[in-house]
Amino acid sequence: MNHQALDYVKSHADAFKQQLKDLLSIPSVSTLVEHQGDCERAAEWLATDMRRIGFDTVEVIRTKWHPVVFAEWMGAGKDAPTVLVYCHYDVQPAEMSDGWHTPPFEPTEKDGKVFARGAIDSKSNVMAQLKAAEAVIKTGTSPVNIKLMFEGDEESASENMTTFVRDYGDRLKCDVAVICDGSMSDREQPDIAYGLRGVVTMELEVHGPKQDLHSGHFGGTVHNPIQALAEIIAKLHHSDGSVSVPGFYDDVLSLDDEERAELAKALPWIETEWKDVAAAPQVWGEADYNLHERIGARPTLEINGIRGGFAGDGFKTVLPGMALAKISCRLVANQTSQIIYERLCDFIMTITPPSVQAELRLIEMGEPALIDRHSPAVEAARKAYETVWGKRPHFVREGGSIPVVVDLQQALDAQLVLLSFGYKGCAAHGPNEHVYLDMWYKGMAITIQFYEELCMGMSKD
Amino acid sequence: MNHQALDYVKSHADAFKQQLKDLLSIPSVSTLVEHQGDCERAAEWLATDMRRIGFDTVEVIRTKWHPVVFAEWMGAGKDAPTVLVYCHYDVQPAEMSDGWHTPPFEPTEKDGKVFARGAIDSKSNVMAQLKAAEAVIKTGTSPVNIKLMFEGDEESASENMTTFVRDYGDRLKCDVAVICDGSMSDREQPDIAYGLRGVVTMELEVHGPKQDLHSGHFGGTVHNPIQALAEIIAKLHHSDGSVSVPGFYDDVLSLDDEERAELAKALPWIETEWKDVAAAPQVWGEADYNLHERIGARPTLEINGIRGGFAGDGFKTVLPGMALAKISCRLVANQTSQIIYERLCDFIMTITPPSVQAELRLIEMGEPALIDRHSPAVEAARKAYETVWGKRPHFVREGGSIPVVVDLQQALDAQLVLLSFGYKGCAAHGPNEHVYLDMWYKGMAITIQFYEELCMGMSKD
Repeated sequence: MNHQALDYVKSHADAFKQQLKDLLSIPSVSTLVEHQGDCERAAEWLATDMRRIGFDTVEVIRTKWHPVVFAEWMGAGKDAPTVLVYCHYDVQPAEMSDGWHTPPFEPTEKDGKVFARGAIDSKSNVMAQLKAAEAVIKTGTSPVNIKLMFEGDEESASENMTTFVRDYGDRLKCDVAVICDGSMSDREQPDIAYGLRGVVTMELEVHGPKQDLHSGHFGGTVHNPIQALAEIIAKLHHSDGSVSVPGFYDDVLSLDDEERAELAKALPWIETEWKDVAAAPQVWGEADYNLHERIGARPTLEINGIRGGFAGDGFKTVLPGMALAKISCRLVANQTSQIIYERLCDFIMTITPPSVQAELRLIEMGEPALIDRHSPAVEAARKAYETVWGKRPHFVREGGSIPVVVDLQQALDAQLVLLSFGYKGCAAHGPNEHVYLDMWYKGMAITIQFYEELCMGMSKD
Repeated sequence: MNHQALDYVKSHADAFKQQLKDLLSIPSVSTLVEHQGDCERAAEWLATDMRRIGFDTVEVIRTKWHPVVFAEWMGAGKDAPTVLVYCHYDVQPAEMSDGWHTPPFEPTEKDGKVFARGAIDSKSNVMAQLKAAEAVIKTGTSPVNIKLMFEGDEESASENMTTFVRDYGDRLKCDVAVICDGSMSDREQPDIAYGLRGVVTMELEVHGPKQDLHSGHFGGTVHNPIQALAEIIAKLHHSDGSVSVPGFYDDVLSLDDEERAELAKALPWIETEWKDVAAAPQVWGEADYNLHERIGARPTLEINGIRGGFAGDGFKTVLPGMALAKISCRLVANQTSQIIYERLCDFIMTITPPSVQAELRLIEMGEPALIDRHSPAVEAARKAYETVWGKRPHFVREGGSIPVVVDLQQALDAQLVLLSFGYKGCAAHGPNEHVYLDMWYKGMAITIQFYEELCMGMSKD
């Protein structure tokens, strides 16, 4: 164990926490144009800290949209393994009116937690990696070379990362690529994800009359676009919870018995998490698959937003001209966004009645990924978790999406590892997002230990 | 013909138009609390003008919500018929972002039209009645006593009028009650409405998980409330366009051949209006009824608004905790709001799956009305239109709702007449609402002539 680095973390615990809060104060919302300057500010903030830590090179690299912060420290020498660490510093939108108890960009500490947009997704991951790197670099104890790559467009489906990873492929060369995002199903039991769902996001717009109408003057003679949209949406699932789009499941890989057994180990935690966090009136979905499998190994079709007519306070008896739904599909290994989008397009055209017009627009695509959970790098991660937590981590398939994983998988000849430190029940993307500070500090310890295990487990050429 | 009064209108045409614009500049939106002061201001503006005209009594009468402006002129003497005129000075909400080309509360004149919220519904009616009264009073030529009653809550389903009409029943005593609201199906062919639909407005709220969730972490295991709401909405109509709520049509009166023939006369105009204003990809609704019958003689169920999740710019892969729809039913004679609400409640409870919770809240109720189209007062109105327009008006059943009609019908021993002067294709409740000035001036002439015809057609005790 690297006691020097671990002591460094301990003695800097308060300073690190203040830095986390500083970063959380910057509303780096990547999906909203008005926050472009804040994303730049967050990138510069990170670069400044990297320079202070002593990275060899630190760059804020402009992309078509938000910058990537890239830093290299090659001080372990050419015989040591090189680790590339990916995180993202951008966050989802957040407004008090969504139900926040404290302002989302004024980090608030309470009962060992810090509440702020981005607390769990994913600025605590950014800062755990950065501070672990600081600990090993500042104490001169790093057994590995470290490259950090923090992107600013993950919440916009990492649109620019494909180009970035292709263009900067040489600079990103490494033996192990660590993707640090996501979170764990339990507060007391660590897990390592090896599967990620992809996501394709779309907008479905339905038009009826050429303008908003008085529902008294025309009601009964016009197919209401909200109703028509609802009728289309209602046809996208069978009553058993499965998606009814023809061919939707065609490319899905089936699970073998060994994998189902591994996944079953984490099931009780996922069930508990569901009861704590989701707490819907009852569980829903494909009856042939357990909760873990539904979340990690099965694709979904979700309505993420809907609007039409007048839905504010008061009442407006309007018969609206249009209605719109935001739709996304989570995909699993071997499915492709483009094909799913096309199948959904075809199906929607089939079920749209001639009384309205419908258009399904593709917004963003991110492919699913499956990582070899028996590789030396994943093995090193498993041991690091065991050392820090004193428990064997579960292996899980994540329901979320980290689009860059596919890009890295394709561009690099490296072993991939997914690391996550936080608890999934921390309201990522929702109001009152937060992070547990004890888990965050453990994240630094895991990273430091992971570097040790890597050197023991891997032999460089 | 009352030439003195008609000449008065002619010589005051520009001044009257400016007054119309002044009233339209006051954003008297009754459904939004923040406009309460504006509603008061509109009421005071009207009262001031009534005092200037010379009404015997003018009162701004406070109600639980917005005031009623009430004025009496009994100068025609106790042997002359007394006419009570009802209009409303409140308007629907309007925002530039709805698609207005000019600010909704800055009246803009163009090509013989004035664009503003309330232009057609219903401040032009208010001002046509007020200015016609001014013309006959100021020229000392009124053959009838005149009571004006302008309410401020019509767009909130006239909630207070029931109480008001009951409490002020004695003051409202009259021989003929004129309800001046609504509009006509054609620019060149006048019509008189004798049927009005009622309206019951409701909110349907569907709850699933206890909070907004990350659609990756929980998608596939939770019945998405937007999807569930869509599934419920989709079950409210049969595929033939009829409403599927059990018992929905039970109390609807069937049409006899004579009435269907009368309604058929106006049908071509209603079809033309539909093509001009609605212009949906195709006509929709109950195949057994023509357009006029669907709008005027059949009840409907409409979705007036919907919201859930994140539906703004950008994309948020949220699995929302709730979704909400605004629903209204237009009712026809012999149906009752309360019964329809209860039947809809029962049905929604039946079709709501156990994976979500649904609640249907009653917002407002207004009953339908049917007026005897063969009464002396309606006959006088027919003749007035014929004189001013040179054409026999069509008799129509309106699709819209004027809740007060039912209250007046129940409270007064008087003949009812519905008068309207404007064109239906003027975007009532929508963006770029407007009024044709030539039709507005004709409205004053019709009112003046109607007073003349009334005296000829009716004998006072």
